[in-house]
Amino acid sequence: MASNKGVAYMGPGKVEIQSIDYPKLELREQKRKCQHGVILKVVSTNICGSDQHMVRGRTTAPAGLILGHEITGEVVEVGRDVEFIKKGDICSVPFNIACGRCANCKEGKTGVCLNVNPARPGAAYGYVDMGGWVGGQAEYVMVPYADFNLLKFPDRDQAMAKIKDLTLLSDIFPTGYHGAVTAGVGPGATVYIAGAGPVGLACAASCHLLGAAVVIVGDLNKERLAQARRFGCETVDVSKSASIQEQIENILGVPEVDCAVDCVGFEARGCGHNHSKEVPAQVLNSVMEITKAGGAIGIPGLYVTGDPGAVDEAAKVGSLSIRIGLGWAKSHTFVTGQCPVMRYHRRLMMAILHDKIKIAKATNVQVISLKNAPKGYMDFDKGAARKYVIDPHGMIKA
Amino acid sequence: MASNKGVAYMGPGKVEIQSIDYPKLELREQKRKCQHGVILKVVSTNICGSDQHMVRGRTTAPAGLILGHEITGEVVEVGRDVEFIKKGDICSVPFNIACGRCANCKEGKTGVCLNVNPARPGAAYGYVDMGGWVGGQAEYVMVPYADFNLLKFPDRDQAMAKIKDLTLLSDIFPTGYHGAVTAGVGPGATVYIAGAGPVGLACAASCHLLGAAVVIVGDLNKERLAQARRFGCETVDVSKSASIQEQIENILGVPEVDCAVDCVGFEARGCGHNHSKEVPAQVLNSVMEITKAGGAIGIPGLYVTGDPGAVDEAAKVGSLSIRIGLGWAKSHTFVTGQCPVMRYHRRLMMAILHDKIKIAKATNVQVISLKNAPKGYMDFDKGAARKYVIDPHGMIKA
Amino acid sequence: MASNKGVAYMGPGKVEIQSIDYPKLELREQKRKCQHGVILKVVSTNICGSDQHMVRGRTTAPAGLILGHEITGEVVEVGRDVEFIKKGDICSVPFNIACGRCANCKEGKTGVCLNVNPARPGAAYGYVDMGGWVGGQAEYVMVPYADFNLLKFPDRDQAMAKIKDLTLLSDIFPTGYHGAVTAGVGPGATVYIAGAGPVGLACAASCHLLGAAVVIVGDLNKERLAQARRFGCETVDVSKSASIQEQIENILGVPEVDCAVDCVGFEARGCGHNHSKEVPAQVLNSVMEITKAGGAIGIPGLYVTGDPGAVDEAAKVGSLSIRIGLGWAKSHTFVTGQCPVMRYHRRLMMAILHDKIKIAKATNVQVISLKNAPKGYMDFDKGAARKYVIDPHGMIKA
Amino acid sequence: MASNKGVAYMGPGKVEIQSIDYPKLELREQKRKCQHGVILKVVSTNICGSDQHMVRGRTTAPAGLILGHEITGEVVEVGRDVEFIKKGDICSVPFNIACGRCANCKEGKTGVCLNVNPARPGAAYGYVDMGGWVGGQAEYVMVPYADFNLLKFPDRDQAMAKIKDLTLLSDIFPTGYHGAVTAGVGPGATVYIAGAGPVGLACAASCHLLGAAVVIVGDLNKERLAQARRFGCETVDVSKSASIQEQIENILGVPEVDCAVDCVGFEARGCGHNHSKEVPAQVLNSVMEITKAGGAIGIPGLYVTGDPGAVDEAAKVGSLSIRIGLGWAKSHTFVTGQCPVMRYHRRLMMAILHDKIKIAKATNVQVISLKNAPKGYMDFDKGAARKYVIDPHGMIKA
Repeated sequence: MASNKGVAYMGPGKVEIQSIDYPKLELREQKRKCQHGVILKVVSTNICGSDQHMVRGRTTAPAGLILGHEITGEVVEVGRDVEFIKKGDICSVPFNIACGRCANCKEGKTGVCLNVNPARPGAAYGYVDMGGWVGGQAEYVMVPYADFNLLKFPDRDQAMAKIKDLTLLSDIFPTGYHGAVTAGVGPGATVYIAGAGPVGLACAASCHLLGAAVVIVGDLNKERLAQARRFGCETVDVSKSASIQEQIENILGVPEVDCAVDCVGFEARGCGHNHSKEVPAQVLNSVMEITKAGGAIGIPGLYVTGDPGAVDEAAKVGSLSIRIGLGWAKSHTFVTGQCPVMRYHRRLMMAILHDKIKIAKATNVQVISLKNAPKGYMDFDKGAARKYVIDPHGMIKA
Repeated sequence: MASNKGVAYMGPGKVEIQSIDYPKLELREQKRKCQHGVILKVVSTNICGSDQHMVRGRTTAPAGLILGHEITGEVVEVGRDVEFIKKGDICSVPFNIACGRCANCKEGKTGVCLNVNPARPGAAYGYVDMGGWVGGQAEYVMVPYADFNLLKFPDRDQAMAKIKDLTLLSDIFPTGYHGAVTAGVGPGATVYIAGAGPVGLACAASCHLLGAAVVIVGDLNKERLAQARRFGCETVDVSKSASIQEQIENILGVPEVDCAVDCVGFEARGCGHNHSKEVPAQVLNSVMEITKAGGAIGIPGLYVTGDPGAVDEAAKVGSLSIRIGLGWAKSHTFVTGQCPVMRYHRRLMMAILHDKIKIAKATNVQVISLKNAPKGYMDFDKGAARKYVIDPHGMIKA
Repeated sequence: MASNKGVAYMGPGKVEIQSIDYPKLELREQKRKCQHGVILKVVSTNICGSDQHMVRGRTTAPAGLILGHEITGEVVEVGRDVEFIKKGDICSVPFNIACGRCANCKEGKTGVCLNVNPARPGAAYGYVDMGGWVGGQAEYVMVPYADFNLLKFPDRDQAMAKIKDLTLLSDIFPTGYHGAVTAGVGPGATVYIAGAGPVGLACAASCHLLGAAVVIVGDLNKERLAQARRFGCETVDVSKSASIQEQIENILGVPEVDCAVDCVGFEARGCGHNHSKEVPAQVLNSVMEITKAGGAIGIPGLYVTGDPGAVDEAAKVGSLSIRIGLGWAKSHTFVTGQCPVMRYHRRLMMAILHDKIKIAKATNVQVISLKNAPKGYMDFDKGAARKYVIDPHGMIKA
Repeated sequence: MASNKGVAYMGPGKVEIQSIDYPKLELREQKRKCQHGVILKVVSTNICGSDQHMVRGRTTAPAGLILGHEITGEVVEVGRDVEFIKKGDICSVPFNIACGRCANCKEGKTGVCLNVNPARPGAAYGYVDMGGWVGGQAEYVMVPYADFNLLKFPDRDQAMAKIKDLTLLSDIFPTGYHGAVTAGVGPGATVYIAGAGPVGLACAASCHLLGAAVVIVGDLNKERLAQARRFGCETVDVSKSASIQEQIENILGVPEVDCAVDCVGFEARGCGHNHSKEVPAQVLNSVMEITKAGGAIGIPGLYVTGDPGAVDEAAKVGSLSIRIGLGWAKSHTFVTGQCPVMRYHRRLMMAILHDKIKIAKATNVQVISLKNAPKGYMDFDKGAARKYVIDPHGMIKA
């Protein structure tokens, strides 16, 4: 049996590399055979902002959890029930695990699959409350329902040549894109994106791909805003005393946008002089102010049902003080939830393969080794304007 | 010059019939000529639940405001710029006033027209903060942009024969229908509708028209629940100690529905033993619990930006404690705002004219004279399971 | 090994009952194991109008082909890779065979699955050129990708009580419904349906379910038109000298409808004095005349790529003289192809189970034994206003 | 009264500049006052491929008809009923004339407005059978329903600086874009566009704006194909002996595309050795062959109801031999008709103003004087890879 190593969450602020079991075609936690699965040799696996919620102790994740839900890999073992995926295929893994057989999957709602998590609809690799599937920040990982879940890249060499872009298909590129699409972004639109972390930047690049006229990214991290400007975005510094509305008016001539996307979620900070304080509904309330009447708001930023570190009792169970009266007066539509990656990944792969988007450059991908993953977590947490991609087998060329 | 009478709001709890000016083709408050308008002899004009918010003193409506935004009338005078509407036409008036010429109107978003209210997008007749247009609970009323706004009934006699149904096209039938459509209701769906007032009942009847498999209406008013059962709805009594989920499970065998509609809005009461207390986010939080993952929630129920009578400071500016973490975990979509009546009224008129829906019966229409309007307001406020339709000229046959 | 019997096509006009192999979990013609499949004991299996094209010799179907793609059955054997379907389940089988794993299936386009027919996208049971899958007008049949394809009825007794309705979920109910949906039918619409055979009648009943204001069915078979009138449709007799437009004007007051559905396909006959002649583009050209500008036309009626019995050389390869100039001038949209049954069957099952539609009554279901299938074919071909449902095991109560 | 000059069609192959009446706010042909209209000083007005159908004698256009439906102008006189458009505004005129008040306009179907052409739904300036409105290849022109129809550019100087791009908003940019949108083009799609004339090139540029992965343009005019390659398109030379499928396979590795757009229409020529012959259904039949199963086909290319110069009797009334059997087998959707320009022009203007598309460069705009318009018609008819823009007042800078 081959050996395996993975990134383990060991308590708030603590992440370490551990020897772990080589994966089997089964899910121990649910006592379930997975002959529909494959074993992947992990080619690349990214650190996600949502991993940080766990690492910061803002969830109930148990120590010992193997992290990682952004996975690209080479198939090294194929379950007996797999028909179309072959050994040697290089594939992208959607972070949402889906059976392909339930009512939700059949409607393309793979983010809320009914068969992969006994606790609730929807599952993911290496995530608290998401079904107990082992994470992929590791050398090897098991992927169930492989025929359904995996997106095979058409050519191995081409895939390895563009792997820094393709690695983002497992989560943040589709997630940012989903935020844009659900906000109604299309040719000629003006857009405000809250958050210049990797998802926000992926959303901004997606808006360009979708033909948006003006893409404005707001954050309080100056380095991240500079990164956004590097690929043609306008920016709003929410730590300034000038309001978001005023800053948008300076850019567009009007104080509102057609579409807005919340790429921040529940760990939002306040605006202006309040910017060092956590104000969990800040982004939701801001985007209602600056989105035009009749517009839509995409919310890929995570809001949780339980947050032990929340600012107040209501927020601990996911209740936030939201100015719904304003949204209602403006006939806003709000689209929440995990991105159903499979709805988008094939077409977005095509956009990468045909050079229609430089998503690695937009999100500033930095490749690191598995043993440097803990440092990657730390630097990312400090606000580095980078997307950390772990390369467990040293397969990615510099 | 003909005389005119209308229903005036005179302060919390006070409504009276006053002599008012006969309408002109102009909007005094905005100093605007309205040669694109017509004068209607009001055939029927309904009391709406949203009028009650004003009458209860839950808004900043000034004393003297002439009420009424649900209007059906006969054209008695035609502005010089009107081309397709003729004297003698019997027409339904969408409650949202729209110019038909701005970017929002061109997209069918007539609920947020940009040219009819200097204060914000969207206007209505006889409503606080909605542009200063005189209300239609009167003998005569002016309707601007008549070619665009009015829906002409194809035949006068047929219209008068079905006037109790057709009168509901100006607001509550399309509004309930919009709630259903935005919640994704269609053939075979299971639906929960919060609120068995006229909009809730109109929504329930709309769900039947849309082919829903099971329509469940929740309220704490037993008379209104009985009315819902009369036309084939299942009901949930939210004042019971059994939770909404439990009651739904008893009906469906599962504790959740495909779609939910909030037909209550900000004056919601609590559930179970809390049912005598105002809990403004109660309905929003309840419907997230009982709507399936991946489902949508239509919110035609009104949420306001200012409420002098609110239960707390946050609610006074329209901020409510909403369990957004739960909605996000279930990938819910939320659609808010005024129904753009024009999107639906022609097709719904056809459904009425061809006997596909008995909307007057479902909402229990009761015709009253103009002088009895104050009593209608009072009875409605007490929770009568009726929809009051004012007949200012005695034109409606018993 | 249990025995098996099935309905075999033996040449133009010849259909007979034969002893056939008991199904295995494999597809001989494609040399393919089907451990993802199940064996069904057939509860009911319907004769379809599209079977008639084969039986009339209008296709290249080889003698010996076992017919039947409308199948409802009880699971009697489960392949080793099947996870969610269990022995004893009563299930509806969509007539389109789909893998649930290809790009088309993932988009809900199960009618053009890429993995089940080496010759072209899309497959079906017992049909020429559709992948070589054995038909289900038999005692037993194999269904591949069972977790994906099958719709399990929630309760066995309830299912058997409503089996005459539920049996129509495998094809004609969704097919007629798909025609209506793709034509844009919804509440208040006026619709013209060409063809009063089972699909046309199922389409008409679907239009009622969808809330249409007026449903007009056209045919030249008087018995079938009478059947349409029985459940509330208006009718047009296309054999009359009055044109379809004139007859529609008599019904609606205007000579056009909002939406039209072609439930006839390539074996269409002419109108008026031409009605005894085959005029394959007759229906397509008629519906362009009577559909309003900006409307859509659903085309579930079958058009083929090869027709040995066609009226001319062009038609033999599926080329018809279509008045596209007229459709273009009216900005028509045309939606063609097999209905992707899975997109609709769950919700339509709910509509049946909750008594929102009487689809068996609308299509006049007649249950027959397997040995009477040949007679059923003959009577159906003569134009009986019936839908023949074969009951191979005598499980259906009279 | 100011003088006026315009481009007149004087018979097959004959176009000349004539002195014509200065426009009035009325429509003589329909004896209709147009106080809702404005008089425009024409800033630019383009020659359209559809004008060529008239000039070639392929329609029933009468001699003396003033041509021109692609108009951009400065408002010089405002009708008394116009409220939001002001003297001095520079505006784009959608080629489809629309009232903004009928059922179709209210649904955004301005291409089939019910109130502007007594003969049929839909009207245009300077076009046969399109309502008798005087064309705009002139110094001055009247535009009715100005508040509804006109798109005002936000800034005069900016508008004049980008006028070569903005002039294309009146027709071919939205028309090409509509073809792309109705074919389902979006990020990552592969597209085949039949025709490299101005509409085809505008469609190709639109596909890039929409994020398409690969845009393939087919034509038999080598100069136009070279123009397509200049802005990043792949090309197919349909006059080659290699089939379109083979050429596409060489580009993509597969012989089919996700989406196809017919930008040619009824004057299509054959492929391969047939390419010098008119084969009116050639494009329609080709695109069915190369569009994937489940795909959609946008058809902005014009098909007419009457063509005196057609190749056969059927084609003279718009009937073409279309291989519908193939399209049906592949579940294709076909979207026909005039582009409803207003649905798109505002957003496309934003894309131009913010430099997201270089539409003038893609279509190779060439500005000419009014007196050179006849030569422009001639050169365009010979197949010049140019879009001719007439500048009647010498307002456009070189």
